[in-house]
Amino acid sequence: MKVDGRLYRTIWLAEDGYSVEVIDQTKLPHAFEIVSLRNVQEAANAISGMTVRGAPLIGAAGAYGLALAMKDDPSDGALDGSHALLLATRPTAVNLAWALDAVAAELRQLTPALRAGAAYRAAARMADADVETCQAIGKHGARLIADAHATNGSSRPVNVLTHCNAGWLATVDWGTALAPIYVAHDAGIPIHVWVDETRPRNQGASLTAWELLQHGVPHTVIADNVGGHLMQHGRVDLCLVGSDRTTATGDVCNKIGTYLKALAAHDNGVPFYACVPSNTIDWSLSDGVQEIPIEQRDGREVSEISGLGLDGKPATVRLTPMGSPVANYAFDVTPARLVTGIVTERGVSAAARAALQQFFPELAGGSVLFAS
Amino acid sequence: MKVDGRLYRTIWLAEDGYSVEVIDQTKLPHAFEIVSLRNVQEAANAISGMTVRGAPLIGAAGAYGLALAMKDDPSDGALDGSHALLLATRPTAVNLAWALDAVAAELRQLTPALRAGAAYRAAARMADADVETCQAIGKHGARLIADAHATNGSSRPVNVLTHCNAGWLATVDWGTALAPIYVAHDAGIPIHVWVDETRPRNQGASLTAWELLQHGVPHTVIADNVGGHLMQHGRVDLCLVGSDRTTATGDVCNKIGTYLKALAAHDNGVPFYACVPSNTIDWSLSDGVQEIPIEQRDGREVSEISGLGLDGKPATVRLTPMGSPVANYAFDVTPARLVTGIVTERGVSAAARAALQQFFPELAGGSVLFAS
Repeated sequence: MKVDGRLYRTIWLAEDGYSVEVIDQTKLPHAFEIVSLRNVQEAANAISGMTVRGAPLIGAAGAYGLALAMKDDPSDGALDGSHALLLATRPTAVNLAWALDAVAAELRQLTPALRAGAAYRAAARMADADVETCQAIGKHGARLIADAHATNGSSRPVNVLTHCNAGWLATVDWGTALAPIYVAHDAGIPIHVWVDETRPRNQGASLTAWELLQHGVPHTVIADNVGGHLMQHGRVDLCLVGSDRTTATGDVCNKIGTYLKALAAHDNGVPFYACVPSNTIDWSLSDGVQEIPIEQRDGREVSEISGLGLDGKPATVRLTPMGSPVANYAFDVTPARLVTGIVTERGVSAAARAALQQFFPELAGGSVLFAS
Repeated sequence: MKVDGRLYRTIWLAEDGYSVEVIDQTKLPHAFEIVSLRNVQEAANAISGMTVRGAPLIGAAGAYGLALAMKDDPSDGALDGSHALLLATRPTAVNLAWALDAVAAELRQLTPALRAGAAYRAAARMADADVETCQAIGKHGARLIADAHATNGSSRPVNVLTHCNAGWLATVDWGTALAPIYVAHDAGIPIHVWVDETRPRNQGASLTAWELLQHGVPHTVIADNVGGHLMQHGRVDLCLVGSDRTTATGDVCNKIGTYLKALAAHDNGVPFYACVPSNTIDWSLSDGVQEIPIEQRDGREVSEISGLGLDGKPATVRLTPMGSPVANYAFDVTPARLVTGIVTERGVSAAARAALQQFFPELAGGSVLFAS
């Protein structure tokens, strides 16, 4: 997507033909900086330090990390060592393990001399596949936006509400929940996005707002408390969110607070869609509220907040009284009964087992997939 | 309520017999400072600068402001001038106008020599009346907490979720939504409060958490996004919130985001109560969503946030990208169908016209009351 009018992915091969360049997401939205990763250690640091984040992007970064390792030393020992190094950066990000396992297995079948070239090709393939999946989600989801535009008589922009960042910054390009928005916007459908701030990590206010601003999509940042009021007053035409894990029955686990927006959408007759690459559907689960464990994160994400100081430098301030405990639940589960549909790379499915199985018969049958 | 183990109100007469002392709420939660108001101008500044806030407290501060004016100059001109000065501090806070009109009308009937003493007595009476109302709300609401404790077999603390600050800092003492919590806690019922941060002004994280911490009530600060997840998992026994305006039919206008919590409570069978002094019931309204105008405030409350810098000094940081628009709706309306009951100073009423009328027959019949 566009930054300052120029097209970018979140990760790409540098002009020197071996370094890997990424956008430093820890600096957004207040500075746009590109970081060059020249060896496997720098790739590992970029993942563990969250220079890159978002499960699909981390997978691609891991694959490129292996390529950087093979470029310097294609031996069996270096392959095993770099695999272990990269795997340890984000132990809970299962997409990373997948990507590393897939690329390493391919490389082990090759003689060392062939490994570097093959690794770069595999990483590029993996990145391209992610882009393709997101574009397909964008295409299918954009039809929902076009339909909403037709329904309102094409008289005004379509108002979409989104929560957290399921944008191109979380993937290699396009994003999941934001992909339909970019496709519709690029196709000339007038659109306006209500961007939930998304406390406590503020991915909406910092990343989603920045993405939309750069690509020229009209938007407004709101506190997470506001969406229900807007829906009561007809100011939201549809909701689009991402998902970190979706059950075979259509329960959607996503950033904390998603459930509250789904309740408000249901109460006001606003369609509510989750945009879900098929590899985030966990076919082994049927009750998301009971079965999906919810990560609890560092309380300082609640008690402190970082931003740009009035002197133009990054700064952190404390919000809560010293001595007041805090709790920080990272995700919640929206039951399928509140989900109008699941936008996948193969089309828009009902949030129900039979419908999802019809879209992905080869996945629904047997193997169990996990997504971070 | 207690601060550092000592009982305080939010406003009181100083030892010198004429100055008025208040807690500087702009400094909370990071510093507890008492400010002395020695003349009407200082009282006006304290209201306009939000040293004191919360409609009932502002009313009492206005009354004391008139007393300070009469102490210096009890003439008709000074009475009219100070009334106008105080009224202009917060033009939308209707409680302030009520308090000022009531006290000024009483004083105009007196000779100047009698006015200062009468004004101090009227202000004290007004403050005491607010405390009495809040205590009564506390007593009635505490029964709900005691019932919840009995229902869970007295086996664990009662978990109450609250939103924003409807505590003693917003009133003269006790508060509205927090009054039942203090009464129950003081009566020895084990209680734990989930404190919604309450973006964008963070009254929960700063004021409610501070109040509860000072009075020794166990509590945990959470992002506004979290309450639904907690209710899905049985971690909330009841919700208690305040109200800025309540319709005759029981629709509750309160801090933005209250509606989302009411939806989650309803979806999970959690009782949801609004704690409402009768003077915040607007008997002229029957449809809160359609009839109550929702204030939009300065967008900088969303795009920037203030707290305590790591150097121990107050600091402000920017959260959103330069160029991203923001919107800041201050309140929303929770329809009566989602409200289990209205806790008033006369008891717990159903959120319905007939029930409210039975509690307040002398108010429901005729005159129209407005609350800020």
